[in-house]
Amino acid sequence: MTSPTDSDVTLIGLGLMGKALAGALLGAGHRTTVWNRTAAKAEELVAQGALLADSADSAVTASPVIITCVSDYASLQQVLTPVADGLGGRVLVNLTSGDSAQAQEMARWTEKQGGIYLDGAIMAVPPTIGTAAAVILLSGPESAFTTHQSTFDALGTTAYLGEDHGLSALYDVAGLSMMWGVLNAWLHGVALLGTAGVNASTYTPFAAQIAQETVGWLAGYADQVDSATYPPDDATLDTHAGGMTHLIEESERLGVNAEMPRLFKALVDRAIAAGQGGSSYPVLVEQFAQPRATSR
Amino acid sequence: MTSPTDSDVTLIGLGLMGKALAGALLGAGHRTTVWNRTAAKAEELVAQGALLADSADSAVTASPVIITCVSDYASLQQVLTPVADGLGGRVLVNLTSGDSAQAQEMARWTEKQGGIYLDGAIMAVPPTIGTAAAVILLSGPESAFTTHQSTFDALGTTAYLGEDHGLSALYDVAGLSMMWGVLNAWLHGVALLGTAGVNASTYTPFAAQIAQETVGWLAGYADQVDSATYPPDDATLDTHAGGMTHLIEESERLGVNAEMPRLFKALVDRAIAAGQGGSSYPVLVEQFAQPRATSR
Ligand SMILES: NC(=O)c1ccc[n+]([C@@H]2O[C@H](COP(=O)([O-])OP(=O)(O)OC[C@H]3O[C@@H](n4cnc5c(N)ncnc54)[C@H](OP(=O)(O)O)[C@@H]3O)[C@@H](O)[C@H]2O)c1
Ligand SMILES: NC(=O)c1ccc[n+]([C@@H]2O[C@H](COP(=O)([O-])OP(=O)(O)OC[C@H]3O[C@@H](n4cnc5c(N)ncnc54)[C@H](OP(=O)(O)O)[C@@H]3O)[C@@H](O)[C@H]2O)c1
Repeated sequence: MTSPTDSDVTLIGLGLMGKALAGALLGAGHRTTVWNRTAAKAEELVAQGALLADSADSAVTASPVIITCVSDYASLQQVLTPVADGLGGRVLVNLTSGDSAQAQEMARWTEKQGGIYLDGAIMAVPPTIGTAAAVILLSGPESAFTTHQSTFDALGTTAYLGEDHGLSALYDVAGLSMMWGVLNAWLHGVALLGTAGVNASTYTPFAAQIAQETVGWLAGYADQVDSATYPPDDATLDTHAGGMTHLIEESERLGVNAEMPRLFKALVDRAIAAGQGGSSYPVLVEQFAQPRATSR
Repeated sequence: MTSPTDSDVTLIGLGLMGKALAGALLGAGHRTTVWNRTAAKAEELVAQGALLADSADSAVTASPVIITCVSDYASLQQVLTPVADGLGGRVLVNLTSGDSAQAQEMARWTEKQGGIYLDGAIMAVPPTIGTAAAVILLSGPESAFTTHQSTFDALGTTAYLGEDHGLSALYDVAGLSMMWGVLNAWLHGVALLGTAGVNASTYTPFAAQIAQETVGWLAGYADQVDSATYPPDDATLDTHAGGMTHLIEESERLGVNAEMPRLFKALVDRAIAAGQGGSSYPVLVEQFAQPRATSR
């Protein structure tokens, strides 16, 4: 073991993801210090040229930028609290998953130590790290992002979202919601067509086309949300409600799970009860923006 | 009024949609007979060259192909039952919205009259009819579709789905499910980011990218469904469940509606309870393919 005193970047946490991140940094030619609670996990990286810190403290003080990737925020605090002094004047880039409140809390804590905090979310699996396919969301002080962007770019496609430290976590979960929305709607269709003996591969190009087309409407619908005006140029919520009834009935008749369209209809019905039946679909954002929608 | 005895195609039902369909047929140069319960609605079309039938009966017997587009199947039966004899040897193409069982029942009835039945679903609004953007799904005997395809092509982009008359209605509702799935997931994300002051237009390109990426996985996932093997090459259901908990908690903390992720999690939890926690996401099709999932 060595006690490196000078490297470009430090990686703390060498689990599946941390190892991939460290490997990408090394691959891009960054002088990289690594540390992991269980030191054995560093062996492969050391063989690739990583400098192994003999303590968390020396890991933190080895580089101007410290990237952390451990299981969760509780683990992160266990690692960093004893070595907090070392953070002064350094940039902590935390890629551990958490929610937006945890990121904001961690930012306050780091700033109290005199450090600069960037929060990140990794929208990728370890094998894609280091390729353009790995999207890394970052938020926090823009100058810290800009100064070290070439380091972050080694990890994948980095996207800077804004000063609010919570943004990475928010975009991350919002993206997951979109992913599950597409997957579940597709599975519902697969189940419906399955009752007629149509296999998933036959149905899927059609589903993909509808999804693409719907995605094409989002920019226009976003303008409606941002201006809070919902002219029903295409269809009214009332019309959508009729179609949803149809989907529920067809699903029930065929013995296919109807919980999802029933929930969709419940949301639409609340908006209609609030007098919005003649508005276009995105008016429903008002139902999504409250814990449990009630009619006005 | 005339009693045309010879035209290429007849259009019955001149509501908003029927008028657009008749206009597209005329525009494509098809000799078109029209009939509507309320005759006044035919005036504009007659000025464009449509032949106005003086009764539903003469409308049916005027052409080898009769396209119907009225409010619903009950209305359709009111129009066609008295003139059923005239259907012998003709092709009835019904574009009235309904469910797959209604389409199958209508097929049996038409065949009993000696007619040939195609069922259709219009995935478009009237202004786009006659353009490639208007998708018309058709199902029933392939030979009837092939013989008259040039007529149907005047209406938009026609897609022939198969012999089962119920397929048009099924693809139609499955497509709607996909549309609402994308829209609702997007709205959920818009609401989440809205809590951080990010407007919808800023968030939307990110949401669109995630949706596109997810759509790109569907073909591979369809193969998993068709072979009923779910190797977790990307992520297990257990991992997804963890992310969903995250999304639920973040939504609740921010005062955003969490009903949708809660339903998604409930479906996943049932699959996990059924021993599928180590499988990839599309194993969830088994939950969608039953009225209310229960653990085994
Ligand atoms: N893997 C993915 O596909 C993926 C994708 C996106 C985001 N992420 C996120 O990346 C983070 C790491 O994931 P992973 O897949 O690398 O997990 P992992 O393989 O389970 O590794 C966990 C890491 O955290 C360390 N750790 C846990 N508790 C600790 C403690 N109390 N003190 C010090 N170190 C501790 C572990 O050290 P030991 O080796 O000593 O146990 C190990 O380095 C998580 O927040 C995860 O949500 C992962
Ligand atoms: N408009 C769309 O965007 C759209 C999109 C896709 C599918 N569709 C489907 O297309 C069909 C027609 O829709 P639309 O928009 O044209 O509706 P619409 O404007 O309300 O027209 C309804 C038509 O049905 C006729 N009708 C109703 N009850 C009847 C009865 N008992 N006997 C005879 N005729 C009767 C009406 O005749 P009168 O004029 O005499 O009342 C009129 O021609 C519906 O199934 C709808 O779901 C519409």
